[in-house]
Amino acid sequence: MFEIVRRDGLARIGKFQTRSGVLETPALLPVVNPKICTISPRELYEEFGFEAIITNSYIIKNNPELKAKAQEIGLHKMLDFPGVIMTDSGTFQSHMYGEVEVTNEEMVEFQKSIGTDIGTVLDIFTEPYWTKEQTAESIEVTLERTKKACDMKGDMMINGVVQGSIYQDLREHCAKEMASMDVDVHPIGGVVPLMEQYRYLELVDVVISSKKGLNPNRPVHLFGAGHPMVLALATLMGCDLFDSASYAKFARDDRMMFIDGTYRLQDMQSLDCNCPACRGLTLETLRKMDKKEKEKTIARHNLYQITNELALVKRYVREGRLWELAEIRCRAHPAMLDALRRLEEHQEFMERYDPISRDGALFYTGAETRGRPVFRRYISRLWDRYLPATDKAALFYDEGNKPYSRAMAADFDKARRSGYTPVVISPFGPVPAELDELYPIAQSVFPKIMDSDTIFETESLTVKFIESKFAEAISGTEIVDSGTEEYDPNLIRAKAVSRYQFGIDATNSLFKGKIEFVISRKTGKIRNVISDGEHVLSMRAGDGLYTLRKEGADRIVSATLPPFMRVSVSDDAVPFVSEGRNVFCQFVTECDKDLRPMEEVIVTDGKDKVIATGRMMLVADEIRSFKKGVAVKIRSGAGDEA
Amino acid sequence: MFEIVRRDGLARIGKFQTRSGVLETPALLPVVNPKICTISPRELYEEFGFEAIITNSYIIKNNPELKAKAQEIGLHKMLDFPGVIMTDSGTFQSHMYGEVEVTNEEMVEFQKSIGTDIGTVLDIFTEPYWTKEQTAESIEVTLERTKKACDMKGDMMINGVVQGSIYQDLREHCAKEMASMDVDVHPIGGVVPLMEQYRYLELVDVVISSKKGLNPNRPVHLFGAGHPMVLALATLMGCDLFDSASYAKFARDDRMMFIDGTYRLQDMQSLDCNCPACRGLTLETLRKMDKKEKEKTIARHNLYQITNELALVKRYVREGRLWELAEIRCRAHPAMLDALRRLEEHQEFMERYDPISRDGALFYTGAETRGRPVFRRYISRLWDRYLPATDKAALFYDEGNKPYSRAMAADFDKARRSGYTPVVISPFGPVPAELDELYPIAQSVFPKIMDSDTIFETESLTVKFIESKFAEAISGTEIVDSGTEEYDPNLIRAKAVSRYQFGIDATNSLFKGKIEFVISRKTGKIRNVISDGEHVLSMRAGDGLYTLRKEGADRIVSATLPPFMRVSVSDDAVPFVSEGRNVFCQFVTECDKDLRPMEEVIVTDGKDKVIATGRMMLVADEIRSFKKGVAVKIRSGAGDEA
Repeated sequence: MFEIVRRDGLARIGKFQTRSGVLETPALLPVVNPKICTISPRELYEEFGFEAIITNSYIIKNNPELKAKAQEIGLHKMLDFPGVIMTDSGTFQSHMYGEVEVTNEEMVEFQKSIGTDIGTVLDIFTEPYWTKEQTAESIEVTLERTKKACDMKGDMMINGVVQGSIYQDLREHCAKEMASMDVDVHPIGGVVPLMEQYRYLELVDVVISSKKGLNPNRPVHLFGAGHPMVLALATLMGCDLFDSASYAKFARDDRMMFIDGTYRLQDMQSLDCNCPACRGLTLETLRKMDKKEKEKTIARHNLYQITNELALVKRYVREGRLWELAEIRCRAHPAMLDALRRLEEHQEFMERYDPISRDGALFYTGAETRGRPVFRRYISRLWDRYLPATDKAALFYDEGNKPYSRAMAADFDKARRSGYTPVVISPFGPVPAELDELYPIAQSVFPKIMDSDTIFETESLTVKFIESKFAEAISGTEIVDSGTEEYDPNLIRAKAVSRYQFGIDATNSLFKGKIEFVISRKTGKIRNVISDGEHVLSMRAGDGLYTLRKEGADRIVSATLPPFMRVSVSDDAVPFVSEGRNVFCQFVTECDKDLRPMEEVIVTDGKDKVIATGRMMLVADEIRSFKKGVAVKIRSGAGDEA
Repeated sequence: MFEIVRRDGLARIGKFQTRSGVLETPALLPVVNPKICTISPRELYEEFGFEAIITNSYIIKNNPELKAKAQEIGLHKMLDFPGVIMTDSGTFQSHMYGEVEVTNEEMVEFQKSIGTDIGTVLDIFTEPYWTKEQTAESIEVTLERTKKACDMKGDMMINGVVQGSIYQDLREHCAKEMASMDVDVHPIGGVVPLMEQYRYLELVDVVISSKKGLNPNRPVHLFGAGHPMVLALATLMGCDLFDSASYAKFARDDRMMFIDGTYRLQDMQSLDCNCPACRGLTLETLRKMDKKEKEKTIARHNLYQITNELALVKRYVREGRLWELAEIRCRAHPAMLDALRRLEEHQEFMERYDPISRDGALFYTGAETRGRPVFRRYISRLWDRYLPATDKAALFYDEGNKPYSRAMAADFDKARRSGYTPVVISPFGPVPAELDELYPIAQSVFPKIMDSDTIFETESLTVKFIESKFAEAISGTEIVDSGTEEYDPNLIRAKAVSRYQFGIDATNSLFKGKIEFVISRKTGKIRNVISDGEHVLSMRAGDGLYTLRKEGADRIVSATLPPFMRVSVSDDAVPFVSEGRNVFCQFVTECDKDLRPMEEVIVTDGKDKVIATGRMMLVADEIRSFKKGVAVKIRSGAGDEA
């Protein structure tokens, strides 16, 4: 029912199948008050392109007229909305006004009776000021009610809400339990007070701990999040659905949403908005409108701000640049910046889902950029997988133009001939010359004037690197050219990249016997690696990483134990995959948990025989939980990738 | 002819009087190619609201048909543009294509003959790769030609272009010479190659060194700058005029400008733009348009991006928040971030023009925020003007909620009664408890997770502060409540704020004899300071700073020598100012150079007699050079300011 189409960070562009059509995520559901429609559902659908809305079943149930109508003609007809309709139960009302006088069973039954596409359990809203005991007890009630709702749901989809207040372990526990039930969407609930109080730092912990507990195969809905300011960050953390009541609520109080915050009409000094709602209006004409018209105009403006930002977020996901956008958006308020900075604490978790490569370069936007998982990944692979060609000494250089090995060719040559390993001190940490062309080392842009956090971290990593890999360290400017040692720069690079990408054991199997290279005439870069006459690896010019050939895959499989670097498929899929068809999730029987999105992978049959090579589109726990979608993109034939 | 209406950083919203109407700055002039008008000048005026355009007189002069027509009916009629028309000479053509075959005199004469509002000298484009000698020599030629043009200009205004390549001293020298001549606008020239090569770091040095040499009374035009991405930063540095040829040039190559960069239509994955040009279009429909229609659509899109951003920049200037916007915009590219970081080197110069207070709070957007002049100002005044109530020891506290003296009232009281001075370690550096309510200490929002640059700087400032002001330092958590010393918190605060604002000597004269306070019942804060029965000062609740009463002003004047804290006006202005009318630039005879915008000032007559008090709207060198505009806003009567 849910499928990932594109990804970046924990963000995903997905397709969510409902009985009222396919919803593309990330999506925002405007809240429609069944009593007061500032903007009609039909307008939301046609003018703004919203494919889904959310309305409140508790309000409908308590209004005899609405109740009768909804039960008679159904929610879709009553609201005149052809898309997906989600309903909230009375949970938020209980948060706002105290106890509600309905039972969970009544609410589930009622939602079914009015034709809701996605109904909600009457869960218990866990307030941020609650004690841990109180929170834990209430979660058990919510879980019990959710279980009941799953039994009752019929063909209605159901929201299984993750609660747990600000307690990360409780959030993760609740999420795990929810994941084991037959629910369809996972809202993260009880977060409105955190957003209202600008406690975005804690919101990050709440979202990530919930994500840790959930299975990846259902959309995650951040209940109550709808300000354009938070969409980039929330999407980056893996939230797929949002909702906004504010667009209309703010409009009633003359408050206009902008990407940099919310402004009261009375405080504004000019109206410089070219959105279709504001175009042609001045502050004066807007202020002088009659109440009704003004409210509608501001509501439309607010919706355009939301749709604009959501479209932009999707564009950045497609371009693999959502980190850049989120890092900029989080500067709208210091509390948002705290959220961004807090995200670094969750680097390890996020690294598991972060693609190994992307099309464009990595752009630094500030000291916070070092919090991206790609920095952690580089250092961890450098530590675990890098072996210097000579450990006599590291010769250190400051950063120059990229790629370093071209810009500093003469210096590096001098170092090598003197038996040293040239190492550049970059914002990623120490970069041995032979790793300088792989993503993101060469494919990244940093400022000349560097922040202290990056400088200190870089220095500290460099010191540790020397200690662990080399006998000593010398500054690159200090040596004289007296060396005569022989070396093969291509061999050093070819092996180092292979170790970085596939590890030491796999590399030993790939580089056996006589090694030859096919070098690009145009760029002088390695194109193919030939080992004992077999073409085992090809190097991509774009990201400096290898594509694995069938011959290479055979060697790795012989030299290592499953599931290392492998995805195994069931017998019925073998003939198709062997012919070059992609591997779909439902045919995967086993999978290496250490593979990241976009990594090279070996597809094997039940007898550990190589049938194809390709690239991971999903990671192990996603493949396990998804019913649909491409798990591995197979390289056509067994040849090179374009 | 030029008047400042609002200001922020070095930015100003100004009114520039020309014979074709008043131009509000900052303004961008679209470049109109007299041969190919992608968007007609009439459309630029009516649809987009551009009040001024720029076209090239060299191209017109070299085209016999255009030349004849322009000389016959004039440029305004020929282009059908009712607003301000600026013309460029052949300088940029000489940069692009080598020598041009006209003389300076011919070009000036020709521009006059076609009715240009603002003509340009045929200056020499100083290339960034030129040697200092070559640059210096060419500047002398440019100066000579400018002198000649001034003699010839008649009623045409003239652009006196600041050249000097990347040499800051040459830029400042050239600017000073230009400032002494009878030119009307100061373009900063020769910067297009810097922008094309993303050398924004050097662009900052070039602009600031030019600004240092120029007089403030003429608009500064950053020649060739028109990408929406740079407008916030360039305006912050005091550039008033911009021009853009790119909107049309990019459109010819299917390149669309966005605030985060320029994208080629072929590379874009979706078109999510709601501007009036794009509204309703998809990427496919736009790509399929015929060449002409597509070019015009993209040009219109580009212009809307520019007008949108310029409107936003103006809004932020009016709200006193341009630093925030520029700090966010500069994250669009690491080279722009370098520019922002480089700006910190010019903090001292920028501090002279930065308003002492503003309506809204200061928002931190990242480590770069510490580069704002207000940080430097706080520390410098703390060093020069702060005297502890007791220097026995400073008792240090970590930051809590604001204002500190309310949130940590009990702790501070304990410290005072033990004879210590409570000091909070804040991102501004050390803050003695009695200064905690003044702008921007209380009126600022920082994240909880702080960057290392701020932490290190704060620590180092704190250590220096102890050494210079106190016998020792103790952590606030370490002492027990054994103190019995008596103290008056209001008196300590009242004096400290006065010293911070007016200095030590003035404060001694204000706080003489018996001191009483009027305290606000609602807030518990000081409202009025009464010294020996005279109401000398009132404290504003908003920014925690004083307004100076006539009685206080009399004391300061008696105790200090002119021009300290004074603006003197000529005899003919005395009766008006005494009645409460504002002081206009042309009536000022002398002025304290250390006063900042929005500071309290004493207005005196020729005999150093106090005739009014008010707030500085301009600083000394602005007052000296401006012919128009309010120099001092007088407080109505001699009473309190609302």
